[in-house]
Amino acid sequence: MAEAVVTVDGWSALHDTRHFDWTSWKSISEDERNKAIKEFEELIKQWETVEENKEGSHSIFKVVGNKADLMFIFLRETMDELEEIKTAINKSVLGDFLIPAYSYVSIIEMTMHDPMKAGDDRELSPYVKERLRPIMPKWEHACFYPMARRREPEANWFTIDKEERTKLLYEHGMTGRKYAGKVKEIITGSIGLDEWEWGVTLFAHDPLQFKKIVYEMRFDEVTTKYAEFGDFIMGNYLAADELAGYLALS
Amino acid sequence: MAEAVVTVDGWSALHDTRHFDWTSWKSISEDERNKAIKEFEELIKQWETVEENKEGSHSIFKVVGNKADLMFIFLRETMDELEEIKTAINKSVLGDFLIPAYSYVSIIEMTMHDPMKAGDDRELSPYVKERLRPIMPKWEHACFYPMARRREPEANWFTIDKEERTKLLYEHGMTGRKYAGKVKEIITGSIGLDEWEWGVTLFAHDPLQFKKIVYEMRFDEVTTKYAEFGDFIMGNYLAADELAGYLALS
Amino acid sequence: MAEAVVTVDGWSALHDTRHFDWTSWKSISEDERNKAIKEFEELIKQWETVEENKEGSHSIFKVVGNKADLMFIFLRETMDELEEIKTAINKSVLGDFLIPAYSYVSIIEMTMHDPMKAGDDRELSPYVKERLRPIMPKWEHACFYPMARRREPEANWFTIDKEERTKLLYEHGMTGRKYAGKVKEIITGSIGLDEWEWGVTLFAHDPLQFKKIVYEMRFDEVTTKYAEFGDFIMGNYLAADELAGYLALS
Amino acid sequence: MAEAVVTVDGWSALHDTRHFDWTSWKSISEDERNKAIKEFEELIKQWETVEENKEGSHSIFKVVGNKADLMFIFLRETMDELEEIKTAINKSVLGDFLIPAYSYVSIIEMTMHDPMKAGDDRELSPYVKERLRPIMPKWEHACFYPMARRREPEANWFTIDKEERTKLLYEHGMTGRKYAGKVKEIITGSIGLDEWEWGVTLFAHDPLQFKKIVYEMRFDEVTTKYAEFGDFIMGNYLAADELAGYLALS
Amino acid sequence: MAEAVVTVDGWSALHDTRHFDWTSWKSISEDERNKAIKEFEELIKQWETVEENKEGSHSIFKVVGNKADLMFIFLRETMDELEEIKTAINKSVLGDFLIPAYSYVSIIEMTMHDPMKAGDDRELSPYVKERLRPIMPKWEHACFYPMARRREPEANWFTIDKEERTKLLYEHGMTGRKYAGKVKEIITGSIGLDEWEWGVTLFAHDPLQFKKIVYEMRFDEVTTKYAEFGDFIMGNYLAADELAGYLALS
Repeated sequence: MAEAVVTVDGWSALHDTRHFDWTSWKSISEDERNKAIKEFEELIKQWETVEENKEGSHSIFKVVGNKADLMFIFLRETMDELEEIKTAINKSVLGDFLIPAYSYVSIIEMTMHDPMKAGDDRELSPYVKERLRPIMPKWEHACFYPMARRREPEANWFTIDKEERTKLLYEHGMTGRKYAGKVKEIITGSIGLDEWEWGVTLFAHDPLQFKKIVYEMRFDEVTTKYAEFGDFIMGNYLAADELAGYLALS
Repeated sequence: MAEAVVTVDGWSALHDTRHFDWTSWKSISEDERNKAIKEFEELIKQWETVEENKEGSHSIFKVVGNKADLMFIFLRETMDELEEIKTAINKSVLGDFLIPAYSYVSIIEMTMHDPMKAGDDRELSPYVKERLRPIMPKWEHACFYPMARRREPEANWFTIDKEERTKLLYEHGMTGRKYAGKVKEIITGSIGLDEWEWGVTLFAHDPLQFKKIVYEMRFDEVTTKYAEFGDFIMGNYLAADELAGYLALS
Repeated sequence: MAEAVVTVDGWSALHDTRHFDWTSWKSISEDERNKAIKEFEELIKQWETVEENKEGSHSIFKVVGNKADLMFIFLRETMDELEEIKTAINKSVLGDFLIPAYSYVSIIEMTMHDPMKAGDDRELSPYVKERLRPIMPKWEHACFYPMARRREPEANWFTIDKEERTKLLYEHGMTGRKYAGKVKEIITGSIGLDEWEWGVTLFAHDPLQFKKIVYEMRFDEVTTKYAEFGDFIMGNYLAADELAGYLALS
Repeated sequence: MAEAVVTVDGWSALHDTRHFDWTSWKSISEDERNKAIKEFEELIKQWETVEENKEGSHSIFKVVGNKADLMFIFLRETMDELEEIKTAINKSVLGDFLIPAYSYVSIIEMTMHDPMKAGDDRELSPYVKERLRPIMPKWEHACFYPMARRREPEANWFTIDKEERTKLLYEHGMTGRKYAGKVKEIITGSIGLDEWEWGVTLFAHDPLQFKKIVYEMRFDEVTTKYAEFGDFIMGNYLAADELAGYLALS
Repeated sequence: MAEAVVTVDGWSALHDTRHFDWTSWKSISEDERNKAIKEFEELIKQWETVEENKEGSHSIFKVVGNKADLMFIFLRETMDELEEIKTAINKSVLGDFLIPAYSYVSIIEMTMHDPMKAGDDRELSPYVKERLRPIMPKWEHACFYPMARRREPEANWFTIDKEERTKLLYEHGMTGRKYAGKVKEIITGSIGLDEWEWGVTLFAHDPLQFKKIVYEMRFDEVTTKYAEFGDFIMGNYLAADELAGYLALS
């Protein structure tokens, strides 16, 4: 039996995607629309206060394609807060037009032993502490996808030696480092919480870099042999002060 | 042909998840909402009486993410009661807003021969009797997932020796014991009743423990080699006296 | 090439599950509801006449869980009658509230050569004739699931010798016999008619017996090696004179 | 690399299934219903003219079970006509009640070299020409299913020798011949057009023959080793002059 | 570890399919319909200006079958523009009737090293530059499908030598060349952006050629051994001046 991985864990994460019901939105008056937007901007201000206090982080993205119209990402200390945020959105007037679509529940996770720095104990590092409770970069694009490791007879991630796992993750990390400054990532663990084993959230100034990094990493042995991927969803950053413009009808 | 497992069985279980139709809920008057809540609180009181009489148990959870808004778990002596409860919810006024989502039907199950205590006959043990008809702990969080055992040529759970099965389950049990006091579990069998072979319901004070235990168990041989998992759904406990607050609109 | 199975075939079967639209049901008047129930009771009476004449059989079950609210099972001499029944339900007033969900189309089937009685020709047996056109037992619970046999390189049901197939089915039959008096079953073939290869409909006084028999059979070689299962749906018998009570609001 | 199959191709095919919205149908007046039926009968007459001119063929079936209520099959010289027919149905008044469900797009296809007659060139045969542009038999029942050939390491249809392919298809054809007069089939190719590689449309006087032929063929090596099947949908023939009766409300 | 592929990349692509809500369309006045069409024609004119300036390209297709009614394909320099176009469609009056269905997000991609011309550097070629930012041919039919390469123990595209990959793609290219003048294709990469790894968009005067080319390519080793395909969607070209006719109600 292979040695189990010990993790250090940070904020809980909710990726919450929504279809926007434009038809109903058009059917209410401009006045009602303005009130709905103002109320929602108040909600966002509360989230901004949390972020300023470094007690959480959030971002909103306009999704490309029809999987959703908006993707909210929330990081919070507790799952209670994440459920409360979802319900607050649903109770708001704008919530009537934000039809729930795909979501993902996970917790920011790092392995205790850093494959990139043998011997370090992550839990004690200030750098790690910050990565476990990160303020998300307000970069122009984000991409989310869930993934799992294979448990097949010919390729069983959970039975290989810790040394082998560390080596494969080290190589993977070296590929990732080539994209420093171009792509930032947050890894969240979802075993026991949602459908896949991990969630990956990438941020970039140029969405082409999502394709570049994930394609290059597909040649890493840890991926070619052991990775399974869920669906990918990609969006463009929506700043709080752009919300009214996004929702404006000509 | 391997020896078939003999089980001892307890209460029947219904995991019943629901989307809440907030848009319609907002469209009725506050008075109507209050009546609907009161009527539903009466239903809950009936369930509480059943629980006080140790003739069943129930819990309600606020689901994190968009898979559902509420998850009800009911344990009852008969499948008849479980169907009646579902229908009573649907007939209630609040039922108009509780849109049915994923559900799971199963029966609390233990193997006759305890892998942790060779030679014991579970059926006679008072401890086992209580675990077959348990009052669910009112802990802060619950997680449910269905699972199955593989029947592949290279890994066929149903063809390996009883001794091997017992050994693997013993190891698995030893991993579980590390979480004593942190995680409680109820195992239900659903072969012949629902889509997967078993349901696992976990309870914890801290939802991080769901990730910790399921991740650590993923390295147990019984999992690496033989387990297949369905989707995971996680929620936060909703006490009866918190229902009105949950449903309140500002 | 293995020798193809020759079957003897009986009545056609329709398993028709429905969600009940309680919200709309509540929105019509009690008078309209009563009329709808009476009209539907007339439909049921027609089905009862068919059953009394041994020209078909039917049963209605209250489904446990959210996959459906009601499951109708119809056995008829022709597929024409099955389509007419479905359409008659849809044309009825109650049909507006019986929202179509999962269904299954198949034909009662037995292999010509009984694996339990070498040498017998089933077609000539009065016992077999009755089993091909059975009046369903009005037992308290029913369970339906579709299944298929594997056609994989390591386990291909359709390439093994007829003798091997007969032996495996004999063992399987022996497991089934242990449940005589507890579980009755109807096997229907659906190759060329619906998504899986066979449908299995089980009847029991105690739903725990569904779990017991299907679990025990999972250890039979014919299952461990060759079986694939679809979803399981379980319900509680609803007699015609209980329909009004089931649909009554308070 | 195995030699690619050369096909001869005929009419394009659209299998278009629809749920019928009986609830809305009941909500309009009998007069409106009659107008809708008459308008649709005009549409059917246009299709009949096409068929009389041997420029296409069509059939309508009442589907058994809840996958759909009606299945339309259209054969036409061009994909343009098939899209126009779909849109004409949708623009008609009856189209408001014919809710689109599963569909399939393909082209009637035969291999250039007939596995049943070595050396023949199909393209020149008048028999083949007629089979590529067939008037569908107005038999009582039809069954449609899509299928594909495996491309697995142990069984890769697209890498085996042309001789082996021809031999396997010859055996398959011999099984089919046993059903002459009982089952007619139209094979359509959908590689590059729809989800699977081929569509199979069977016609029979007795739907039991669908089960018989597909079951017997399942033992052919070309099936046991190389075939994957999609879902099956079965229906009963609806003649044009039966449409009004089908749609009549008591 | 195999050498990762280096790509040269062009315009971003959005394949956006829509169901048309004919029932609601019929329920508004002819005047409202005309206004909605005119407004949408203005949108199209904006897209045409972009195309005339060679800053993007677009096409609209009438889909055959029920997967969708219309498929829009947009090529633009940025993902921002693609999101803006989607939202502009949704905000338009016609958008109320264009119900979002399947979509696909990708970026036009070529490998840096052309398998057809050893030694060439694609990035410098004017021909390649044009293919990375192509004006789509206004041919009568288009077909879209997503695909991926296998990562299985027996067939792992991402672990084979670059030389082997080049050889297999060369053979594949040779098959494609047979269809010069009959089929044009645009390959888009979607690793990190959408569910599959690549999107393939084919254009043809005769839709039979879609079947011919994809069928013949299925015998190429790169396909038989390494390819997995998603669903295929096929449509007929709709010119801007045909839109009003398409939407006209007799």
